[in-house]
Parts: sequence; C-alpha cells; structure tokens
Amino acid sequence: MPELRKDPISERWVVISTERGKRPTDFKMPAVADESVDSGGAKCPFCSGNEGKTPPEIKAWRKPGTMPNTEGWDVRIVSNKFPALTSEGDVNRTGMGVFDMMSGIGAHEVIIETPNHEMNLPDMPDEHVEKVLWAYKQRIVDLSQDRRFRYTLIFKNYGKAAGASLAHPHSQLISTPITPRYVKLELSNSREYFLEKERCIFCDIIRQELGSGERVVYENEFFVAFTPFASRFPFEIWIMPRRHEYAYEIMPDEERLLLAQCLKEILSRLRKCLNDPPYNYVLHTSPNPLPRPGKPDYWGTIQYDFHWHMEIIPRLTKMAGFEWGSGLYINPTSPEQAAKFLRDVA
Amino acid sequence: MPELRKDPISERWVVISTERGKRPTDFKMPAVADESVDSGGAKCPFCSGNEGKTPPEIKAWRKPGTMPNTEGWDVRIVSNKFPALTSEGDVNRTGMGVFDMMSGIGAHEVIIETPNHEMNLPDMPDEHVEKVLWAYKQRIVDLSQDRRFRYTLIFKNYGKAAGASLAHPHSQLISTPITPRYVKLELSNSREYFLEKERCIFCDIIRQELGSGERVVYENEFFVAFTPFASRFPFEIWIMPRRHEYAYEIMPDEERLLLAQCLKEILSRLRKCLNDPPYNYVLHTSPNPLPRPGKPDYWGTIQYDFHWHMEIIPRLTKMAGFEWGSGLYINPTSPEQAAKFLRDVA
Repeated sequence: MPELRKDPISERWVVISTERGKRPTDFKMPAVADESVDSGGAKCPFCSGNEGKTPPEIKAWRKPGTMPNTEGWDVRIVSNKFPALTSEGDVNRTGMGVFDMMSGIGAHEVIIETPNHEMNLPDMPDEHVEKVLWAYKQRIVDLSQDRRFRYTLIFKNYGKAAGASLAHPHSQLISTPITPRYVKLELSNSREYFLEKERCIFCDIIRQELGSGERVVYENEFFVAFTPFASRFPFEIWIMPRRHEYAYEIMPDEERLLLAQCLKEILSRLRKCLNDPPYNYVLHTSPNPLPRPGKPDYWGTIQYDFHWHMEIIPRLTKMAGFEWGSGLYINPTSPEQAAKFLRDVA
Repeated sequence: MPELRKDPISERWVVISTERGKRPTDFKMPAVADESVDSGGAKCPFCSGNEGKTPPEIKAWRKPGTMPNTEGWDVRIVSNKFPALTSEGDVNRTGMGVFDMMSGIGAHEVIIETPNHEMNLPDMPDEHVEKVLWAYKQRIVDLSQDRRFRYTLIFKNYGKAAGASLAHPHSQLISTPITPRYVKLELSNSREYFLEKERCIFCDIIRQELGSGERVVYENEFFVAFTPFASRFPFEIWIMPRRHEYAYEIMPDEERLLLAQCLKEILSRLRKCLNDPPYNYVLHTSPNPLPRPGKPDYWGTIQYDFHWHMEIIPRLTKMAGFEWGSGLYINPTSPEQAAKFLRDVA
C-alpha cells in the first residue's frame, strides 16, 4: 500500500508510491512512446468506443438514453488505472520515532475531456469546456462527502514535458487525507490577512491588478486572468473570480460559461504566443468542510476568507535547477512583458 | 536592474531577472548546444589557458608563484557572466500596494572545480574534491561580511536536464538579501523543535537513521549519507555531519577531507547505479550572522540550533507536473529501496 510520509524538518508530505516501485533501470531509458496509443483510435483507452479499456465509469455527461461504459458521452470520469493512492481502507496515522506517516488512502481519477482524440481545450466549443468545468465541480462535491479526505486537487498535465503520459485530452484529480502544502500555506496566509484587515487578500490583489492593468491578460464580467506580480515562471497566469468566492464548487452555474470562455481564451493565447507549449494547471480551492465536533450533520470549519483560483504554468524553462533545493525562483521574463505579449497576440 | 518580488499569498520571493528578458521566441526552440564549447579546449571559458574568457578571478587555489587570471590554478572562482542578480548598489526595499519588492542586489559566482574539462567530482582525487569544498567555505565567509546579504546558497547543476549550460565541471553560488524559502522553513522548524525539546531535530533524525540503518547509504567517522524518510524524488540523498554543526563554514579543517570522501563516494554510486544521471545538489547552511543592534562589532543572531547539510537530487522523473502547483510530491521509489540499491552498487 502507498504511504504518506511527512518530513519533520520542512513539514512536507510526500506520497511514496511503492506499487509503482521504480528500479534504477526504469530511469535509464526515456519511456518509449506508444505511437499507436498517441495517435488515437483503436488502442487509445480514452477514445470513444474503447470504454472497456478503462476502469468503470464514475460519472459522465451523457446523451439521454446511453448506458454507462458505452459510447454517447461528452465528458467521462474514471479511476486512474495506475493510481498514486489507494481508495480502499482506513486512514491509519502512525508515528515512527521522529517521523509521521499515514496510509496512502486517496482517490486518483481521470477526467476525459472529450471522446475526440484531437480536440484540445482551445479547439472545443465554449459549451464543451463548460462541461469539463462542470465535471470538476461534481467530483469535488462528491468526494467531499468521503470523510477520509481533506482535499481534492484538480490538475492538468498537457504535453509530455509537463508529465502527460497519454495525448488524449484529459485532466486528473487526487483526493488526499491532508491538504497539499502550497494550498495550506495560501489558506493560512489568507486567514491571517483577513483576521488582521477583515479584507480578502485575493480581492485586494484583484483590485490592484485591475487598477494598474499592466499584468492583466484578459477579463470578462466574472473573471480576470493576469500574470502574478511575483511570477515564478515565464508566462505564469492566474485566473480568479472577480467576486469573492471561497470555493470553486460554490460558483453559481451561470458563471461557469464565462470561466470556460476565459480558460479557453488563455490557453489559445498561450498556444499561439508560445508555439503550443507544454503546461500544467492546478485548481486551488478550499479544503473539504469538516463536521462540527458533536454535530456530524453540520458543517464546521469552512474557510470563507479563501478565494479559489486556477494557476497555469507553461513549462518553458529547464532552469529549475537550484530552485528545487531552495524555493527561490529565477524568472527570466517579467510578468509585465509576458502580459503584454499575451494581450498583443489576441 | 533585476528585482526581488514577494508573492503576498504564498510569501514566496522570486527573482525577476529582467536583464535576461526572454521573449516568447526564445522559448520556442531548445537552446542549441555549442559543441565546440561542450567538448572543451580553446572555446571553453573554464578550461585552463582560457582565463581571459571569464570575468576577473575572485579567488583561487593556486600553485605558488602563479598570477591571478593565468594558468596554474586548481580551483578558481569568478563572477557569473550572466548574473541573475547585480552586485552594484544598495538594497532598496519598497512596497507597491499589497506587494513588496527590493532591488535585485546579490552575488552570482561560479566555482570552477578543476582546469580539466573531463574531470568530474567522482574522477578527482579526494584532495582535489576537498579544495572545491574549501572554496565553498571561503566564499561563504567572505560574502557574509557584505552586510547587504542574508544568505549564500551554494549549488551545483550537473547535466543539461539539471540546468547546466556548460559541461566543464563547476558549481555556483548566489548571495541574496533574503534567506531562500526552503532554508527559512527548515530554520524556523528546527528552532521551534529546539525550543520545545532542547534537542536538535537533525541530530534526532541522524540518531534514528543510524539506529535503523535501512536508509543509510554510506557513513564515515564524521559524516552520514542517507535517503530521507520522506524523499521527494527517487534516490534523493542527504549528507549531514554526525556531530552537531550549525553552519558549514565552522566545520573544522580536519573534517573536510572526510566530507570530500563522502560526497565523492555518493556521486560515484549515483553514476554507477543510475547510468550517470543529471543531478542538482544544494548546501543548506545557517544564514549570515547579523550584528547586534547598537554593537556592530558583535555577532547577534546566530542560529545554533540549525544543522547544515547537503541535499542531492538526481533528476530522473518528469512527473513533477502537479507537484509544482501543489507542493505534494509523488515518489515512485521508496527511500528504503533506493538506499539498498546504492549500498549494493558499492
């Protein structure tokens, strides 16, 4: 069974995925691309008609009258065939001397964004992108009911250099019994800011960004996309709701189409401006609400002072050498330059 | 001038290196390797005889009677020709609404480890590796006298995939007016642990690792190398002094040869076990001591409860997709497996 382990010095949690058990020789050669899978069709497990090649369907946006695990879907969610965490069992928390660990319980799912192997997010109609975003919400809400999980992280790896092992358009999610470290840090800092000022730090940033405009790439009625002031990476972009919304899943349905338009527009511009770069995006939302002690039917800790957002990171540089060991990033493109390029490409 | 900028949500500092000013087209093609430089000889700025191709020498381990910026050196330190930070000017700290920034003042130097283009650390005599380690100490001590700097980070990128742009064996250092985030986190957590228990957290970990032995790769009289319990990456290795030493630069001279042997042994085994993988290593030591308020000749804040160490990260996986956005790492090789492979290869 995989394990979650905590480094006591940095307080960093790590998933030790022993099932994958990679040996030294597994790293010696780059993974051989299976072209027949990468080109779609009969061998691609995510293509329409191959529903039997994936684990059973968890949820799907389907045409009326079609059956699960058959054709006729627009967006389809299945378990990851090689999950980093296992969904069976209890979360056992144990100590080993100075170390902490817990059993590697979690969910690891794949959101297949379209039956069409070639249709990436910028190519889809807005309404189809919206269905993908709808799927994200459904899974976050469903998985928050599992009392073992503290967080559901939605992310997308696009392109081999960004970690995608299959070319067919898909996103992933991982639910964990802990809140991932970067999100936790954002949660505690936005809490602290709110307690001091009774204002949301994200709302303050949005007001400042919209005021100066120099880092704004795109905006519509409900959303704004900008290159953050302290961008770690060239062309890093954040998308935020302009109104205060503490969690992705509370976003009203009527806003979702505008988020779809914003996300599609940003990904289209990245593709145009940077020649279809590999990228990752991550959704940072609030942790799962916990029940109140003694009142299991009432929600207790909800962090109303958080503000959900998406972080998009094009994978352009290999320079992350010492960054990995220090946490100090060197970014060779200023966010103001990057925003201007992304505005001009429109 | 480059800028240091702080993200108020994550409290992360970033160097925006505007001088490098990369445009979208700079990322479209992989950098073309200059084979004539990579193969050493007349064009390599770090090879013996080409001393004029680098910025002037800052320090060197030289044969008696030889002149700076000529042949006859064993280890040579020069400024980085394309520095991420600039050494000229004062540290101006300014606020811009919700954001903090300071001028990008700092040192960025290259430690040329040998005049010999082909001689990597595992190929050197122990005594030569020791000279490299001596150079690290000299620079940390010298740069700690510059009151603008809070920290000097020593690191090495080996191989293109780890960020090395020149093949000639070299390490680098960056001095900054802030302490890098990961080091800061380790400093505050080890301080907290000490205040609670009056024991060093690193010493406790070393005791536990030596007791179980399952993650120990190598040990000698003064040093131990092990795969950390919560390894982020396959075959990640930490080297620590067995005795409590709060800073690298206070290491007694007689220990340095044993550190050289330990580092060389570990790098040799990584090369053998993993087929000469790209890697990074980073030296985590204490921040520069600050003078006492009102008593500029006395050292004030020294963090005696820290314990310096080296972190070695082979760059084997591309899977760092969502890790970059979450801070949660998935490691497909357990540290116990990795340690066993590295013991068996000896």
